[in-house]
Amino acid sequence: MALKGKVLVAQGGGPTAVINQSVVGAVLESRKFTEVTRVYGALHGVRGVVNEDFIDLTECTTQNLLDVAGTPSSGLLSTRDKPDAEYCKKIFETCRAHDVRYFFYCGGNDSADSCRIVYEEAKAAGYEMQVIHVPKTIDNDLKVTDHCPGFGSAAKFVAQAFAGVNLDNRALPGVYLGVVMGRHAGFLTAASILAKQYPDDGPHLIYLPERPLTKEKFLADVQAAFDKYGRCIVAVSEGIVGPSGKAIAAEFTNEKDAHGNVQLSGTGALGDLLSEWVKSGTTIKRVRADTLGYLQRSFLGCVSEVDQREAREVGEKAAHYAIGHGMSGSVSIMRVGDYAVEYKLSALKDVARESVHMPDKFINADANGVTDEFVKYVKPLVGPMPTQARFSAPKVEKVLNK
Amino acid sequence: MALKGKVLVAQGGGPTAVINQSVVGAVLESRKFTEVTRVYGALHGVRGVVNEDFIDLTECTTQNLLDVAGTPSSGLLSTRDKPDAEYCKKIFETCRAHDVRYFFYCGGNDSADSCRIVYEEAKAAGYEMQVIHVPKTIDNDLKVTDHCPGFGSAAKFVAQAFAGVNLDNRALPGVYLGVVMGRHAGFLTAASILAKQYPDDGPHLIYLPERPLTKEKFLADVQAAFDKYGRCIVAVSEGIVGPSGKAIAAEFTNEKDAHGNVQLSGTGALGDLLSEWVKSGTTIKRVRADTLGYLQRSFLGCVSEVDQREAREVGEKAAHYAIGHGMSGSVSIMRVGDYAVEYKLSALKDVARESVHMPDKFINADANGVTDEFVKYVKPLVGPMPTQARFSAPKVEKVLNK
Repeated sequence: MALKGKVLVAQGGGPTAVINQSVVGAVLESRKFTEVTRVYGALHGVRGVVNEDFIDLTECTTQNLLDVAGTPSSGLLSTRDKPDAEYCKKIFETCRAHDVRYFFYCGGNDSADSCRIVYEEAKAAGYEMQVIHVPKTIDNDLKVTDHCPGFGSAAKFVAQAFAGVNLDNRALPGVYLGVVMGRHAGFLTAASILAKQYPDDGPHLIYLPERPLTKEKFLADVQAAFDKYGRCIVAVSEGIVGPSGKAIAAEFTNEKDAHGNVQLSGTGALGDLLSEWVKSGTTIKRVRADTLGYLQRSFLGCVSEVDQREAREVGEKAAHYAIGHGMSGSVSIMRVGDYAVEYKLSALKDVARESVHMPDKFINADANGVTDEFVKYVKPLVGPMPTQARFSAPKVEKVLNK
Repeated sequence: MALKGKVLVAQGGGPTAVINQSVVGAVLESRKFTEVTRVYGALHGVRGVVNEDFIDLTECTTQNLLDVAGTPSSGLLSTRDKPDAEYCKKIFETCRAHDVRYFFYCGGNDSADSCRIVYEEAKAAGYEMQVIHVPKTIDNDLKVTDHCPGFGSAAKFVAQAFAGVNLDNRALPGVYLGVVMGRHAGFLTAASILAKQYPDDGPHLIYLPERPLTKEKFLADVQAAFDKYGRCIVAVSEGIVGPSGKAIAAEFTNEKDAHGNVQLSGTGALGDLLSEWVKSGTTIKRVRADTLGYLQRSFLGCVSEVDQREAREVGEKAAHYAIGHGMSGSVSIMRVGDYAVEYKLSALKDVARESVHMPDKFINADANGVTDEFVKYVKPLVGPMPTQARFSAPKVEKVLNK
């Protein structure tokens, strides 16, 4: 029989379009267990836990929960706090004070690590508490899992954005540079490939943080694509590095976040720099750069249905594993068919801290594009794209300019 | 009885999400008239007319036309060429050589002016030809018409973008600056107001090109909003001007387009500049800037249904006026109900060249927001927004930190 007590849910790190599906999945499923006395939500992640900033989700109507589930960005609000051992001790103490027996934390690899420490704290204190890490990232960089909830929707946004700018750039040709989120892993930038429909569609070049890039190589690639197509669309990850391994964007901005990382998002610096490279290093005149920015992870009204469903399910599974089975761990997604998934519970230590990169098999030999294997991997996560078509009509014979 | 001959359709200027609806409306409707021998499309606007780069849209399947209608960005491709009298003479000569009796040109005020000159050329030459300007702009800055096809969909994108970043910024508070297209008219930036649902939602400040802005006023506004809400979302038009009347962005970029205008889009410079102002001029630490860029006018999969329908109708009306009634002019939309529209044909000279600004009644007294009257104006053009919701749950009493 399950342990009687409260459930506490929280969300950490950067929001995603479907992160509320996971929370709502956990809440709805937890409320079915008679052992669960209350389901609390902590506001602003672990910081809210330490400060006891809780709301009582047991009192949400089902309709309210379903509406929030369909809303992008962390409904319980978020934090960039990365708890150390002392911080985790406080988390545990607060849980004990409120008789929290099930703690579900939705986040990336840092959040998995926090879960790991809190779980060990509780164990050392002899307080029975299950801790589940519920995965989310738009970067798709978590270990063990086949892919991360949140990635598919962000990937869909990126694909729809590049499909649109491809059409725009076809109408008014030039070079278009789109900077995509992804500090270390190129999955999201790579997803721009789904914009392609006709062989001459962009993106014509895709640059990922996994492969160092030189200015010379970049300009040669752009010129070659421009010569071939009369235009050139480039998808470039915000995290691309030079030959030294240092982020190209890092030389042009000084702001660091709470983790000591250079600010890559929320600035147009990288796009403008690459734009300047093309303007000064080639004869191409029309060069435009957009930084896709925060829209990628929170645009209202662009979700992948598969992603939405899976995000809900990892939340539900958290409740099943913890309350139904008295287990702690990280919920992982296994791809078992084309396309089908199953869920399993992984050890927190296997997911915590480290992140993954795009595997070599997904990156082309020229280091400026992706492989068919990647397309096969990413397509089911994004699902069908909106229809796009070209006029299918014959050319008319010239009369004056024969 | 209508004059027998060909119809020629073309698209000019910046693409919109629904510009193909207008072309397809004109094509489908033209094909119903037995007097119409062929329906040609010119590639790359007026440049394609001069070069006789035509495709025969009479041979498109209906399904192909409907698919293209739903696709963003000019399916007939576009041009930034602004024809002078000599250029217009060539347009007319090409039309005469191909027995074109109906020329439909989909574009903004420059395109309306081209239509006017071509019409006068034909008249002077005694060649019977009807010329119709079919309106489109995302800027909503055409004269006579209540609003422009293309605006509603771009406005919807902007509203959904700001709704998303509002939720994101609520989860991880700070200052967010979103730079929106609009060189002279603030309509599109103003449409960000539709992101607001709760009273504390952003955008908290909206800056339009119609009102000069000083750095001091901007920083005071941002600080005041931040003090009130603990965060601050700013929607700012790319075309905002300083007290001298010069575009604030103009001091930081040198590229000029074919019309001699400073490049405002496709660069993150303005956002980064304002971001720097906030970082150095206030004590606020987390400041992010996004430039919404080309996604605003061509993102695949974000259209206003009303806009889509009206864009189709202005194209259909072009055929009715020209072929059915032997008239030339610019198709205008009149708002006749709440909400309903009717179409009329305006004189080309009344729409050509000049553009309009946001009327004073739409801008608040503080010059940092919009009025309820603007909201009433813009809401039906965008239509319903996707659902967004907050958890509706009571606070939990603290145990440790009482």
